[in-house]
Amino acid sequence: MRSEELGETLLPKRLALPIFASDPLSSVAYATEEILLVLTIGGTVFLHLTPWIALGVVVLMAVVVMSYRQVVYAYPDGGGSYEVVSSNLGPRAGLVVAAALLVDYVMTVAVSVASGVDNIISAFPSIGGARVGMAIGFVVLLAAMNLRGVRESGKTFAAPTYLFIFGILLMVITGLVQAALGHPPVAASAKYPITPEGSANTLAGAALVLLALRAFASGCTALTGVEAISNGVPAFRKPKSRNAATTMTVMGLTAVVMFAGITALSLVAKVHKTNDTCQLVGFPGDCHTASQPTVIAQLASSIFGGDHSPLFFYIQAATALVLILAANTAFNGFPLLASILAQHRYLPRQLHTRGDRLAFSNGIIALAVVNAGLLWLYGANVTSLIHLYILGVFTSFTLSQIGMVRHWNETLATETDPAVRGAAQRSRVINGFGAVVTALVLVIVLITKFTQGAWLAVLAAVVLWVMMRGIRRHYDAVADELAVVDPKAESVHPSKVHGIVLVSTLHKPTLRALGYAEAFRPDTLEAVTVAVEKESMDELKQKWSDYDVRVPLKVLDSPYREITKPVVGYVRSVKRDSPRDVVAVFIPEYVVGRWWEHLLHNQSALWLKSRLLFTPGVMVISVPWQLSSAPRADHPARRAPGAVRRGEPAGPEREPIRTGKQG
Amino acid sequence: MRSEELGETLLPKRLALPIFASDPLSSVAYATEEILLVLTIGGTVFLHLTPWIALGVVVLMAVVVMSYRQVVYAYPDGGGSYEVVSSNLGPRAGLVVAAALLVDYVMTVAVSVASGVDNIISAFPSIGGARVGMAIGFVVLLAAMNLRGVRESGKTFAAPTYLFIFGILLMVITGLVQAALGHPPVAASAKYPITPEGSANTLAGAALVLLALRAFASGCTALTGVEAISNGVPAFRKPKSRNAATTMTVMGLTAVVMFAGITALSLVAKVHKTNDTCQLVGFPGDCHTASQPTVIAQLASSIFGGDHSPLFFYIQAATALVLILAANTAFNGFPLLASILAQHRYLPRQLHTRGDRLAFSNGIIALAVVNAGLLWLYGANVTSLIHLYILGVFTSFTLSQIGMVRHWNETLATETDPAVRGAAQRSRVINGFGAVVTALVLVIVLITKFTQGAWLAVLAAVVLWVMMRGIRRHYDAVADELAVVDPKAESVHPSKVHGIVLVSTLHKPTLRALGYAEAFRPDTLEAVTVAVEKESMDELKQKWSDYDVRVPLKVLDSPYREITKPVVGYVRSVKRDSPRDVVAVFIPEYVVGRWWEHLLHNQSALWLKSRLLFTPGVMVISVPWQLSSAPRADHPARRAPGAVRRGEPAGPEREPIRTGKQG
Repeated sequence: MRSEELGETLLPKRLALPIFASDPLSSVAYATEEILLVLTIGGTVFLHLTPWIALGVVVLMAVVVMSYRQVVYAYPDGGGSYEVVSSNLGPRAGLVVAAALLVDYVMTVAVSVASGVDNIISAFPSIGGARVGMAIGFVVLLAAMNLRGVRESGKTFAAPTYLFIFGILLMVITGLVQAALGHPPVAASAKYPITPEGSANTLAGAALVLLALRAFASGCTALTGVEAISNGVPAFRKPKSRNAATTMTVMGLTAVVMFAGITALSLVAKVHKTNDTCQLVGFPGDCHTASQPTVIAQLASSIFGGDHSPLFFYIQAATALVLILAANTAFNGFPLLASILAQHRYLPRQLHTRGDRLAFSNGIIALAVVNAGLLWLYGANVTSLIHLYILGVFTSFTLSQIGMVRHWNETLATETDPAVRGAAQRSRVINGFGAVVTALVLVIVLITKFTQGAWLAVLAAVVLWVMMRGIRRHYDAVADELAVVDPKAESVHPSKVHGIVLVSTLHKPTLRALGYAEAFRPDTLEAVTVAVEKESMDELKQKWSDYDVRVPLKVLDSPYREITKPVVGYVRSVKRDSPRDVVAVFIPEYVVGRWWEHLLHNQSALWLKSRLLFTPGVMVISVPWQLSSAPRADHPARRAPGAVRRGEPAGPEREPIRTGKQG
Repeated sequence: MRSEELGETLLPKRLALPIFASDPLSSVAYATEEILLVLTIGGTVFLHLTPWIALGVVVLMAVVVMSYRQVVYAYPDGGGSYEVVSSNLGPRAGLVVAAALLVDYVMTVAVSVASGVDNIISAFPSIGGARVGMAIGFVVLLAAMNLRGVRESGKTFAAPTYLFIFGILLMVITGLVQAALGHPPVAASAKYPITPEGSANTLAGAALVLLALRAFASGCTALTGVEAISNGVPAFRKPKSRNAATTMTVMGLTAVVMFAGITALSLVAKVHKTNDTCQLVGFPGDCHTASQPTVIAQLASSIFGGDHSPLFFYIQAATALVLILAANTAFNGFPLLASILAQHRYLPRQLHTRGDRLAFSNGIIALAVVNAGLLWLYGANVTSLIHLYILGVFTSFTLSQIGMVRHWNETLATETDPAVRGAAQRSRVINGFGAVVTALVLVIVLITKFTQGAWLAVLAAVVLWVMMRGIRRHYDAVADELAVVDPKAESVHPSKVHGIVLVSTLHKPTLRALGYAEAFRPDTLEAVTVAVEKESMDELKQKWSDYDVRVPLKVLDSPYREITKPVVGYVRSVKRDSPRDVVAVFIPEYVVGRWWEHLLHNQSALWLKSRLLFTPGVMVISVPWQLSSAPRADHPARRAPGAVRRGEPAGPEREPIRTGKQG
């Protein structure tokens, strides 16, 4: 895409919803399940808490959606949490959000892919052994697609997301109608009672509260990805902010309905789901390796007539697909955020360089590698991965809302129009309430999840934060050092150029280097070699006179058979004798094509070059000789070996002439 | 060491023996054990085969020693198997030996270290859990010592080797005297009968022969390292060949006496030793993890009064030490052989470069890494490692002896002196016999060991062989391509130099690059930049006029936001318009000190440079700017940041002046 063509295609709401909402909507696929898994610690006695916990999640969802509607209006140019927090609370807080979001993108991929694989295995239990392999396979596939630049259009997103929404709603309505008609669905797992873990059925007081809070924290996964729309406001059709806000409300309502419906149905159908299958009394197979179908799969099976019915497979396919799409949004978001951070000099420049496809590739590869490791480490287990997930989400929620409160404060400080003031005051109340609520949830999540794995996410974010600050400090220091203060004083005009051609043997690359060096007409020019072995030195001297080379040859002694030290020492001595001059070191090099050929060549030249680059007042000139195996840059045809034209006396080197012009 | 000082110190026989014989002598520490381990497959019923198998090994030892005495006389300049085979049977056969020897050096380290650790654990059973860690630790220690260039003098070697010989002989004599006096030593393990594996006690016919051959093949480990003396002839005092031959005979006799003595004693003392401790009836501890003391340790304990007696610890210490020394000889031999092979262009040049300590370092590091992997993979288990070992030894034995036969044939074809002819004929018979015998052993080893792990050694050698031939072909092709045929025609004299300074922003490194480029006074000079973002381009143009830079600035368009392509394209277009000229591309670079800083800089410059190097007719000039964090090459003091002197109008760049001279 040419620069001018960027940002031409704007999205109607019906496409914006699936594009931005696949992440938040897909999370209803595992949110209910995670609540049930926590509560079954006490057998079935605590399952009656489920509706209240689900209600808490729904209320929280409403608060967050309302808060982000304010963001959408306040930042029509795209209010990513990083920008909102950076501009309102300063770069340090912004960097906290950035670190949390980077961890979050990683976890979005891991959790979504793991849950997607779970739903595939629920449909085809016989492939359960390939769980980790499948999960890593999806990550590799997503990375490959994004590396090849396969950009899904809105329509690619629209179909699976709408199929998912439609399928879940159909399932919820069917199930509720069945229940109303007196034939409630019964999950296959309902016939296996759950035995409480240890003495968990006697929990009371603080322990019960902690259990409920932990279940609530798990259920909050339904909220992941809600902020996606606020990042994407510029992609909406006009009026951007209003359309985005409406889409956000629709998304929130859809998510709430789907989540509440699934939760209600799982209680109606008596879905028994536990991480430790040994807790299921009478469950078939080895309780330590058997895995149960996901909650979605159990519901679909019981409502749509068994796990071989077409609608069951439809629900599972749509669920898996929307989860993989959700993972894909992270593959878009991560490199973009990394690129913005690199632009702000918090990450290595290679992640930015606009227009260089390499920049995004690095981010994509990094995301894929970290994820493959995580999925392997955690056996692609959704519940284990979930513990690392929501912390980052709520960190950025909370800081964003605090940032918004600061934003409205500033608006109120300067604004005089009473209508605007009134709106700002209302928004400030909403965002302030959102900040308090999300902060509270953040604390709950921290307390209930920290020892279960969230500490790793915290540690990763802290390490990222420290690293990013270090990188920024380094870039700033370099920029300070390189900045021109006084162009007159800092311009360099050496009086003379001393040319030195490094020679080890007299082959074609050396002849070319000597010819190029002479063409430069430096003030002095000499060839320098290091005497390591007497025989080869004698041979070189002999050839030097045989070939009648006009450049004088200077031989450096090297009693200890070193190369680099004598050369650097000689260059420094030349420089010392005439500090106002510059020394130009010509190095004949041959370039090879295949990667393994590099291992066979030029290692000492590379080392020497890097040492010379550390020597002040020197320039290092590579005179390349392209071996026949080397690809020519942008060259239509390769020159065959031996195709050098001979017999043109002292002629210039020539290339195959394409234009017919002669210089 | 200075070049002239090399090869001054010659060895008397009493020092040459321990230096060259620590490897072959140390192998008696495990040869008997490996025979017993194979035979105990049938409980104790096949142990009566032991003396015959030992006799076979002794005869083989005599044959090999006699054969190598011929080599020593024929090649007074050092008859390494690689040289003998290369010169007599051609480079392809020589390369086979080289590959076999490289594998062999690796296995010498692995087996010796593992056996050394075994003997240490036999003395201190409580540290048995640290087996692999200790083994890898010794490898790292040996590598570190050799990397630091700690060269052991003859005396370092002499003491442990003589202590080992003396200790083993003392033990053998004491044990035999005890037996003669009617009080034979009884090994601690004698009281645990061995149960046969499966129906192994009923072996007969072919299966029995195979068992005996397998035991014999294991016993042949006693012969490893015999050829060491023939490599080292030049290090002997005059008459070199005779002294070397005498030393070889003494070594052979010593090895035979020690090996025969240990084997006889282990039968007398009824040492029961098996790899699967479950075969030992009544053996204490968990039979799957318990490890038994080595044969040496069992003998020393029974003969010298228990495993707390001083003489027991003396035997174990001397054995472990001589085994580690044997591993050390491989750390000397491997880089040397690799260096010779690199000199013959079969291995990457970096392994040769005489005088560059790096060359040997690469070999040492490679040997250590491969060994650490092997020891980890095989759990530092001597028996598992032994299977990979002797194949290479006998490959080089056999090919050497065949080569020697060819050598004597050639001598006889030209020689007329009857005395010399007679000697040559005798030698030819000996070497011919040696060739037949060692070839037979090679076949036995291949048959009995291939499936037990020797295939890996074969595979490794084949891969090495193919790789080395590929490397040689590559180097030959490059040398052909670079050779100067007609110096007049192939000298290059471009008519003009077009200077191009690449600019991205106008900071100090750019100013320096512009100044240096001007100092060169090329025929044309322009600054070139790529327009990626409009704002930064406007800023650059503004600065260009503000700073009053005299070099014209050319802006290349880049609609696709690429950097490399427009630059390479422009350089090629300049080159196309004037093919007789050369294009000099100046690239301002800053060099940083810490490794991680490299990750933050210069990636695009590096990429651009490498693309330009592939463009014919271009030279690439790096103008370095040393950041304050960068170390100055060989510089006594660092320049502090900001210590650039200001206020010297248009002055040259200056270094801190050490001599007081002003240029």
